[in-house]
Amino acid sequence: MADQFGQKKMVDAITPMEEDFAKWYTDIVKKAELMDYSGVRGCMVIEPYGFAIWENIQKILDARLKELGHENVSMPLFIPESLLQKEKDHVEGFAPEVAWVTHGGEEELQERLCVRPTSETLFCDHYARVVHSYRDLPKLYNQWCSVVRWEKTTRPFLRSVEFHWQEGHTIHETAEEAKAETEQMLKVYAEFCEHDLAIPVIRGRKTEKEQFAGALATYTIEAMMHDGKALQSGTSHYFGDGFARAFDITFQGRDNTLCYPHQTSWGMSTRIIGGIIMSHGDNNGLVLPPAVAPIQVIILPIAQHKPGVLDKARELQERLKKAFRVRVDDSDQSPGWKFAQYEMKGVPLRLEIGPKDIEKNQCVLVRRHDREKIFVSLDKLEEAVAEQLEAVRQGIYARAKARRDEMTYCAEDAAQLKEIADNKPGLVKAMWCGELACEDAIKEQMGLTSRCIPFEQEAVGDTCVCCGKPAKTMVFWGKAY
Amino acid sequence: MADQFGQKKMVDAITPMEEDFAKWYTDIVKKAELMDYSGVRGCMVIEPYGFAIWENIQKILDARLKELGHENVSMPLFIPESLLQKEKDHVEGFAPEVAWVTHGGEEELQERLCVRPTSETLFCDHYARVVHSYRDLPKLYNQWCSVVRWEKTTRPFLRSVEFHWQEGHTIHETAEEAKAETEQMLKVYAEFCEHDLAIPVIRGRKTEKEQFAGALATYTIEAMMHDGKALQSGTSHYFGDGFARAFDITFQGRDNTLCYPHQTSWGMSTRIIGGIIMSHGDNNGLVLPPAVAPIQVIILPIAQHKPGVLDKARELQERLKKAFRVRVDDSDQSPGWKFAQYEMKGVPLRLEIGPKDIEKNQCVLVRRHDREKIFVSLDKLEEAVAEQLEAVRQGIYARAKARRDEMTYCAEDAAQLKEIADNKPGLVKAMWCGELACEDAIKEQMGLTSRCIPFEQEAVGDTCVCCGKPAKTMVFWGKAY
Repeated sequence: MADQFGQKKMVDAITPMEEDFAKWYTDIVKKAELMDYSGVRGCMVIEPYGFAIWENIQKILDARLKELGHENVSMPLFIPESLLQKEKDHVEGFAPEVAWVTHGGEEELQERLCVRPTSETLFCDHYARVVHSYRDLPKLYNQWCSVVRWEKTTRPFLRSVEFHWQEGHTIHETAEEAKAETEQMLKVYAEFCEHDLAIPVIRGRKTEKEQFAGALATYTIEAMMHDGKALQSGTSHYFGDGFARAFDITFQGRDNTLCYPHQTSWGMSTRIIGGIIMSHGDNNGLVLPPAVAPIQVIILPIAQHKPGVLDKARELQERLKKAFRVRVDDSDQSPGWKFAQYEMKGVPLRLEIGPKDIEKNQCVLVRRHDREKIFVSLDKLEEAVAEQLEAVRQGIYARAKARRDEMTYCAEDAAQLKEIADNKPGLVKAMWCGELACEDAIKEQMGLTSRCIPFEQEAVGDTCVCCGKPAKTMVFWGKAY
Repeated sequence: MADQFGQKKMVDAITPMEEDFAKWYTDIVKKAELMDYSGVRGCMVIEPYGFAIWENIQKILDARLKELGHENVSMPLFIPESLLQKEKDHVEGFAPEVAWVTHGGEEELQERLCVRPTSETLFCDHYARVVHSYRDLPKLYNQWCSVVRWEKTTRPFLRSVEFHWQEGHTIHETAEEAKAETEQMLKVYAEFCEHDLAIPVIRGRKTEKEQFAGALATYTIEAMMHDGKALQSGTSHYFGDGFARAFDITFQGRDNTLCYPHQTSWGMSTRIIGGIIMSHGDNNGLVLPPAVAPIQVIILPIAQHKPGVLDKARELQERLKKAFRVRVDDSDQSPGWKFAQYEMKGVPLRLEIGPKDIEKNQCVLVRRHDREKIFVSLDKLEEAVAEQLEAVRQGIYARAKARRDEMTYCAEDAAQLKEIADNKPGLVKAMWCGELACEDAIKEQMGLTSRCIPFEQEAVGDTCVCCGKPAKTMVFWGKAY
């Protein structure tokens, strides 16, 4: 893979996705240098190129959260066992998969501490101390951190023992406000995915079975990957006053009575990087949405030893860097090696400039996702780059959406559903009676879980796809990461 | 402290620092709403106002690190016990104060994992996998994260079980490069403290006794707090090839031989927020350096019910927010309450605007640190605010430096040193022979530790302040946080 000087790493081809999708995925995360495995099972090293994608995601989302009035805080890494246990549904959901700290230095702790799997209990503990009056509400808090869930089977970005995320936790005077916040945040996630990441998503509500531990309602955005599997890409939970009651959070209301506040939480994690890879990547490597690409334009000087070429390349870099993330690769690798390298890394635009281009006062832009070549006058370079980055965004969105539409099916009865489940990767729209028994049966017999009850309902039938009784809602069913 | 509606919180006076310095400090962190204690001993909740200071610190430092070619990464939260033990001095230094994870979910782990107290071992483990050739060097990595040290006695920001920091870890082809990096990073920290935080610092090297576990040299910047105690505010370590040998990191050199690389690490933490409080704060609360203040200008409308006042206040906010972090407080609290509130929060400039000011096309700027009032024409508001923020920065720096100079003493022999140690809070310059025995004796008999061997040496004598033998260097001695 690499010669003794490490020069050629990452230019070998990756496993085609048609041959082995899982291998294709892990080839990309390694060869695009997104991550490295560590000595701790399920915990990864996120390397600079991978972390830069996360930093770009953070920058965009954080600004959006702050615009909406949210404030960042930091909660402790540890949760005492007794605190985790305060809300019954919540502890049932999380206790089986937490890491326990039992010793501090040489001493055994009197009470075990778990490494936070999520921080509802910590926020509640704090809110109980600082919320006294309706004047203290709402509190719109968020934190960027990593959390730990002791997963048995792990995959880089998609499911790891430790992962990075943001977790928003808000507390409100009324149920209406809390519900509106829950919905608003789902919308923020959906728009971020569709606009900035160019990943089409389905917005909907989770069934009770798939709800977050302790929530009254969980909303989700679901994306479809290349292999037809769904990826839950962001969730937003409405808790009502359940946590407030469990943690004894009360406030003096406007009418002087003692009230329980209403809460929400919502999160998006590094798993979305897995979503980017599996939504846009191809057999040449990553394809990155321009908004989060660490390098948006890679400038490759052609025949760079010829006089003036390198100078011109650097001049263009200076011009472009005012508005774009841009680099010049003036290493002595061959142009072919460089093409392959930056395709692997998913850089949205390649800019080629050689002696003949300079003569003609032009350069060539090549789009990563469709290899379209555009000849551009250097006089209008900035406009052309902005235009082409937007074309990439729209192009990869359209491609992902077309694939999703193509791989979305309808089933009217159990036989049809089974036929699709067995033979056609993708999502299935089918009616549901609302009973857990049917949801369980579909999972057991066909290996499909309910992905969500979409906000945009369609009448694909009148009866439950499983039991044949009158249906209540349409559900998206599928296999999921 | 707070009435039933939580309205009056934070306006009561705090304990004067002359009366009880420790109480003054904790009063400020609570009343300025920087943090809240959590249910886990030594772990704090950093509240929005406190975290916003940290975010501003991050923004400035992170940009500076990136300018110098550093890249952010993320290492795992956990270190397997066997990995921690690979470098002998390092494990001796840290093993007694780590938190141990022994169970994942319901199962006992085969090998204990510690929650990282610092990440040298994790970076080395990664470098061993990815460094093969001199072409792979240098790697200039940094991570922003929290780490855990099982401290017995904790104080908010100054010494907590969990704290946030950045830890840089670099690996180089030659010892010279690594040494230059170590020195460069100390300079970055020193300039950041002196320029952005307005905290004067002494730059120097730690004695062997006070060195970081596993380092060949530790450089430090030391600041002096209000009470004369020193605060180690940033450190930079040179490791030579010690870690590389312990972790078997080798590379093919330019001459084709197998070589060991040379490493550094360096860090600055949330403890610097404690340093800001104790460098600049006064008996009215926090005094924040403009560069990191979450609010740089608070606009207080006077007689805000009078027509036009609120509109004018908002108009000024719109103008100022293009260049400054600015807010209007249009709540119905009294002006006196508001004055006290934003003094407690350390907002560098208060802008007062009332009906008479509007008539005269002016406003009043009041500087937090010296309460100087400046009448400013609204036509030149932006320039005046920029000017006054710079005046605040210079003013608080000069004040802190004057105090430090005043509280810095010279001792020529043990009797003098003891007299100062017992009666005069502050730092002491005194000569040292270089022997550990003298350093230990000074600590034991006078309660002073060596803070650093300053780069700027002065000849304050010829003989060791302790044993009277010929001296090698001048050392700053003091009590420290």
